[in-house]
Amino acid sequence: MPRSCVRELLSSRPGSDLISFGGGVPHHSCVPLKDIQAAFETVCTRHGAQAFSYGSSEGEPELRDYIASEWLPRFGVDARPDEILIVNGSQQALDLVAKVLIDPGSAVAVERPTYLAALQAFSAYEPVYREVPLDECGPMPDALATHLQTAGCRFFYTIPSFQNPSGACCTLGRRREIVEVMNRSNALLVEDDPYSQLYYEKKPPLPLCALGASRPVLLGTFSKLVAPGLRLGWVWARSETMRHLVVAKQAADLCTGRFSQFLVLETLRRLDIDSHLSMIRAVYKSKRDAMHMALTASLADLCAWPLPAGGMFFWVKLRYADVPVRRLLARCIKNRVAFADGASFFATPSAQSFMRLNFTQPTPSEMTEGLMRMRRVLAE
Amino acid sequence: MPRSCVRELLSSRPGSDLISFGGGVPHHSCVPLKDIQAAFETVCTRHGAQAFSYGSSEGEPELRDYIASEWLPRFGVDARPDEILIVNGSQQALDLVAKVLIDPGSAVAVERPTYLAALQAFSAYEPVYREVPLDECGPMPDALATHLQTAGCRFFYTIPSFQNPSGACCTLGRRREIVEVMNRSNALLVEDDPYSQLYYEKKPPLPLCALGASRPVLLGTFSKLVAPGLRLGWVWARSETMRHLVVAKQAADLCTGRFSQFLVLETLRRLDIDSHLSMIRAVYKSKRDAMHMALTASLADLCAWPLPAGGMFFWVKLRYADVPVRRLLARCIKNRVAFADGASFFATPSAQSFMRLNFTQPTPSEMTEGLMRMRRVLAE
Repeated sequence: MPRSCVRELLSSRPGSDLISFGGGVPHHSCVPLKDIQAAFETVCTRHGAQAFSYGSSEGEPELRDYIASEWLPRFGVDARPDEILIVNGSQQALDLVAKVLIDPGSAVAVERPTYLAALQAFSAYEPVYREVPLDECGPMPDALATHLQTAGCRFFYTIPSFQNPSGACCTLGRRREIVEVMNRSNALLVEDDPYSQLYYEKKPPLPLCALGASRPVLLGTFSKLVAPGLRLGWVWARSETMRHLVVAKQAADLCTGRFSQFLVLETLRRLDIDSHLSMIRAVYKSKRDAMHMALTASLADLCAWPLPAGGMFFWVKLRYADVPVRRLLARCIKNRVAFADGASFFATPSAQSFMRLNFTQPTPSEMTEGLMRMRRVLAE
Repeated sequence: MPRSCVRELLSSRPGSDLISFGGGVPHHSCVPLKDIQAAFETVCTRHGAQAFSYGSSEGEPELRDYIASEWLPRFGVDARPDEILIVNGSQQALDLVAKVLIDPGSAVAVERPTYLAALQAFSAYEPVYREVPLDECGPMPDALATHLQTAGCRFFYTIPSFQNPSGACCTLGRRREIVEVMNRSNALLVEDDPYSQLYYEKKPPLPLCALGASRPVLLGTFSKLVAPGLRLGWVWARSETMRHLVVAKQAADLCTGRFSQFLVLETLRRLDIDSHLSMIRAVYKSKRDAMHMALTASLADLCAWPLPAGGMFFWVKLRYADVPVRRLLARCIKNRVAFADGASFFATPSAQSFMRLNFTQPTPSEMTEGLMRMRRVLAE
């Protein structure tokens, strides 16, 4: 199993002067602390010590009801509460999906590039990766169709909205094509949707799982809407898939913390969700623009990048393909600036050199200073 | 992968009149709710929104320091903070240990009987089980030695103090023998210790991991001391094992909730731990005695059981070995009483029939009523 370069950065003790563009960390101003505090009072009053007991492996019924009846209809998804599983952040869903679906040597289709922690979760179960390239409209249907036919892939893992790391947003037309290709095979569509509400230009199309996918597995998270440190995500899948995921969840950790579930549910009930999301989008849009300016000022001659229309990252390509990014990162860390090595986002090695830079966490002055530090190392 | 009969019981919606002896659920009166509430205030004041951010995969440094310097010395374990990994309840540690150590077909030594959820966690990775019988002093060293020599077991999983489900407590002499046997092999000693502080007669001996085991992996939990619904446990292992567990943790769910860790740490700092544990022991001892009386009154002619000197369960043997316990349980549930089917605690089938009955959760009148319901079904 590969180690995660992003996780390694987070494990250093705090109090350092490191400027990190590494993780996909929500900004603290977007955490609704006052609402969480008020929600805590409500949870203690309503549930008392029972809030701190074991719960069911599937998750708290009230939260599953909320997701099915209040959250998913926003995305055109018609789900029953018993088709929802609550997990410790959607990362755990990636692990459970892999545990249920991958035997050593199973073929799995992933985008190229794709989320490094998904590769990490899957790789523990020893799949063979089939990579689907991305163009400006999203993953390429012909390549996907070929992989599904020739390799008998167990599933296709995709992040259609503001893909991690590339930032690309799959068009509606392409989504329909992908669904059509998927529905001609027996593979599951594992759709990861952490970012669709973090759009800074226009709202992305509906998820593929709402566009007629016949074997849908949709992953969602409250990390971006409420707070990542409560570790709450969810999976929607049909019952024939869900019953296997539930057994895997039983074995993985018995259940997700009941208290966190109550706390998030009460917080959601208190929040005006639309205006909270608007606030988050405004904060991140201004950070994205600041990062774009800082990048242009410091790295334009050495790197190229598309402006991401949503999400949390710039996907920055080095103009000189032979730059050893791993060594560059090590040098940068010595100079107190960090990012995610693009190589970690490829299931098989890439000839090009990339860096993934987060813009939701640093302040504008940290962006300027951090990118200056990077420039000095790169110029060397 | 087998489903968990205990977890299935917990997934039924609340509000039923079912009396459950199924799960190992702490009693709500043992949850220090007032201290948790006060701790919440402290956490919000001290950490603000940062308490709700991502943390490191290893766990919060302060909590790891606490476990190494304040908790483990109580048990004679000399650990460094960087040898501690925080997990979502010790169940997750079982999954991570299995993910790191088991390849399909690997031999693994377990007690006979052993904890059903450990079997569930391990079985996902397709090991071959080697079972070590228990006598009145603990697991039998000769059987263990034979398995280690002939099968090359990857690890031996043991619960020496108030074993789940048998309630047996391994003697000091036997612990030393087991350590000696383990140290002649390359297998890891995976020691699970959820119950050593729940003693109702005398304090159990030190853990095997404090008695010179050379490849120790010690699992602990805050579920019994503070609350299970915060899902916090920990693992102590030497660095050569720990680095693999950390990568598995990264892939499993990135990190344990930062907020829960701060909340438990502040609660522990506020609690007078010795008097809190004394209170819990007093509550459970009286419940154990009530259960013993109720069992004697209702099932003595049909069943036999040892009085557990600690832990949370009676391990009840049916006097008639050919009773199909699975069907019995189904009939009992129809009659609104539940327990854990003893068959789930055996890696390979047993000729004898057992039931595991929890005594920490039900009230004395629920015990009487629940056992009367069971008697009616059994008598039929």
